[in-house]
Amino acid sequence: MLMINLTYSQAIESAVDLKMKTRLQQIQEDLYAKKGAGSDFLGWLDWPSSLPDDFLSKIEDTAKAIRDKADVLVVIGIGGSYLGSKAVLSALSSYFPKDEQLEVLFAGHQVSGEYLKQLLEHLEGKEVVVNVISKSGKTTEPAIAFRFLRDYMEKRYGDGAAERIIVTTDAEKGALRQLAETKGYERFIVPDDVGGRYSVFTAVGLLPIAAAGHSIRKLLDGAKEAETTYREAGPDNNPAMQYAAIRHHLYVQGYTTEVNAIFEPKLSFVQEWWKQLFGESEGKEGKGIFPASVVFTTDLHSLGQFIQDGQRNLFETFLLVKEAQQDLEIFETPEDGDELNYIAGLSLQEFNHIAHKGTSNAHLSGGVPQLSLTVDRIDESQIGHLLYFYMLSCAYSAYLLGINPFDQPGVEEYKNNIFKLLKKPGF
Amino acid sequence: MLMINLTYSQAIESAVDLKMKTRLQQIQEDLYAKKGAGSDFLGWLDWPSSLPDDFLSKIEDTAKAIRDKADVLVVIGIGGSYLGSKAVLSALSSYFPKDEQLEVLFAGHQVSGEYLKQLLEHLEGKEVVVNVISKSGKTTEPAIAFRFLRDYMEKRYGDGAAERIIVTTDAEKGALRQLAETKGYERFIVPDDVGGRYSVFTAVGLLPIAAAGHSIRKLLDGAKEAETTYREAGPDNNPAMQYAAIRHHLYVQGYTTEVNAIFEPKLSFVQEWWKQLFGESEGKEGKGIFPASVVFTTDLHSLGQFIQDGQRNLFETFLLVKEAQQDLEIFETPEDGDELNYIAGLSLQEFNHIAHKGTSNAHLSGGVPQLSLTVDRIDESQIGHLLYFYMLSCAYSAYLLGINPFDQPGVEEYKNNIFKLLKKPGF
Repeated sequence: MLMINLTYSQAIESAVDLKMKTRLQQIQEDLYAKKGAGSDFLGWLDWPSSLPDDFLSKIEDTAKAIRDKADVLVVIGIGGSYLGSKAVLSALSSYFPKDEQLEVLFAGHQVSGEYLKQLLEHLEGKEVVVNVISKSGKTTEPAIAFRFLRDYMEKRYGDGAAERIIVTTDAEKGALRQLAETKGYERFIVPDDVGGRYSVFTAVGLLPIAAAGHSIRKLLDGAKEAETTYREAGPDNNPAMQYAAIRHHLYVQGYTTEVNAIFEPKLSFVQEWWKQLFGESEGKEGKGIFPASVVFTTDLHSLGQFIQDGQRNLFETFLLVKEAQQDLEIFETPEDGDELNYIAGLSLQEFNHIAHKGTSNAHLSGGVPQLSLTVDRIDESQIGHLLYFYMLSCAYSAYLLGINPFDQPGVEEYKNNIFKLLKKPGF
Repeated sequence: MLMINLTYSQAIESAVDLKMKTRLQQIQEDLYAKKGAGSDFLGWLDWPSSLPDDFLSKIEDTAKAIRDKADVLVVIGIGGSYLGSKAVLSALSSYFPKDEQLEVLFAGHQVSGEYLKQLLEHLEGKEVVVNVISKSGKTTEPAIAFRFLRDYMEKRYGDGAAERIIVTTDAEKGALRQLAETKGYERFIVPDDVGGRYSVFTAVGLLPIAAAGHSIRKLLDGAKEAETTYREAGPDNNPAMQYAAIRHHLYVQGYTTEVNAIFEPKLSFVQEWWKQLFGESEGKEGKGIFPASVVFTTDLHSLGQFIQDGQRNLFETFLLVKEAQQDLEIFETPEDGDELNYIAGLSLQEFNHIAHKGTSNAHLSGGVPQLSLTVDRIDESQIGHLLYFYMLSCAYSAYLLGINPFDQPGVEEYKNNIFKLLKKPGF
């Protein structure tokens, strides 16, 4: 059975000791018995294995219809309604997309007037479909963006706009649910028992991913593989538990910041998704490890200095890819002015593997504990596996801290403050 | 005289006390007398005011020639040879560039084979110019990328390639210097007394910025304004000193991480540039504040929870923009299902100002000290002012820590490790 390959520096081998194993086993028992804090939000836990085939077919049909009628899909959402599909799309898409491919753009994930205005201009002359994602339909940022985009679509397509707007929202209630019914928009559901940052395998993430032409069945196969594997395995051979245990061990020792490091820039939005997952799940009650990210080797010429020699409160987790999907081989030049001929024949992926080893050794000798998580390659199945792995490991990690992994009480604080300043009725 | 507007929460007003003022004055004296640690690398300090007009004209002429003959400019560089121009270009360019504009792409800032292969494919059918930036010509990442791009250009353009390759390198020595002479490439100079992260106002940053059609004269006018203003002002009315002093005050109190927060996503590479500047300047001898960044309101639905309620070792610095270049106004809808009619008439920029206030209050009440730096708008002059402000403030900040702001000894460590693993002759 495939697992994420977790390795770690010698000094932290003791993290998964007998006491820790007992705690992990208890959490595992409670988690699958749905007895822990926040257990109303455990819908994601067996989601990959419970998805009915007709649900996937409906997503695939809608995705095909989007591709047939649109050049651009505008996805409106924020937080988990944005980062899940963005992470998967960035990982799986080409760095330089071809003109004939569906362009997936995001809106409502921030409130820049300049961005939104230029986005609307960019849509001119292109066929457009909009997928608006909001459980309540009242979250301010996507609601603002959707006002502008609905207006744009109705002015441009008239009654035909209704066939070009798809909502992903609550099954029963809410402003978007109601609007969809009135207008006859196609609807998908945000489940009640899956929080935003755990929603990538629901319609929230799947529809944009499928629309872009990626296989959501393979994505879910990967997730299902992870679901089964890590459900069965105990602390001795369960990387999802071990990653959580080592993080916790380091946290207790005073390491306040985890730096997630990649060598393949396509994974940078997986890092952003990971930051939301762990930051929002654990950053409560004055606790939690601050999640930060770097893209190597770029940032070896930036934050690399700090990681090597700066304040010693960091540990580093590499997210590595064994095989590149595409690669190039370094070749000889006659003059060799840049002194690279000695590595002629090496591929860039091989260079990155060596760069990882060299960097890890250097940072370890600088007092930075090292972990690595390795996937075989970047494809739907491996990304599905990886994201499920992270979600599960995050639950273990938060429970080790004694924190409910599934709420976000601090997010309300800023919202209430803004509503007060805006003089929203009732605030 | 225009200054960056710095504000901060009450609790840290005491940061700039009499003792601190004396230290700042001493640093100021030493800095401008070029007596501090690393003073061989102070070329940037009076750079904006000392640039001869013919230097700027040469850059502008070359920039125009690039626009005349190219659809794409590929800039090859890493660290400071990448982040300075990338930061300015992202801040000043449209979110959705028009087809007729010069496309500026980067290479050699990482070693992804997939990226480089797809970049080369992307160049097909487009007219190309390459600007390779490397002081020694031997830095591995840009050297690898330039091997591939030079080969591509020579195969495609034959002898004409020489007119389409521009090198920015050492004035006297090095592999690129020599190659440029042999091949007849146009040359620009990386000065000896300006380190990579301080090089944005040299040819390193200016050529790509000018090529994209932005006014480097306005950029430098802004930098010159900052140079003059902060050189004269003392601790009581010098935000460059005050920002450094408050950071230091918080660092001494145990705040280990600074979160730079923006509401205009175009500034996200200014944040990356800032991270290199401060991280690489201060992260030494086990010291330094870890520089992290968030884009609001996106990340209020991500790291926002952690900032509000997580481990209390953070402070937050907002980088704010007073006036938007382009804006939209929220309008009424008849059904008001999303309950936004109460803010009809508000512009998105006004919304962001209120979001800043609400967020800042919320995070302050959560125990996160707050600072803000405000520029009037995002244009060449203000960005020039801002980047100079940061460079100068970083020098003060590092000197307060007792650190040389201008070296990066830790970067060598990973390089040496990689060379050993690659069995580079002599390592």
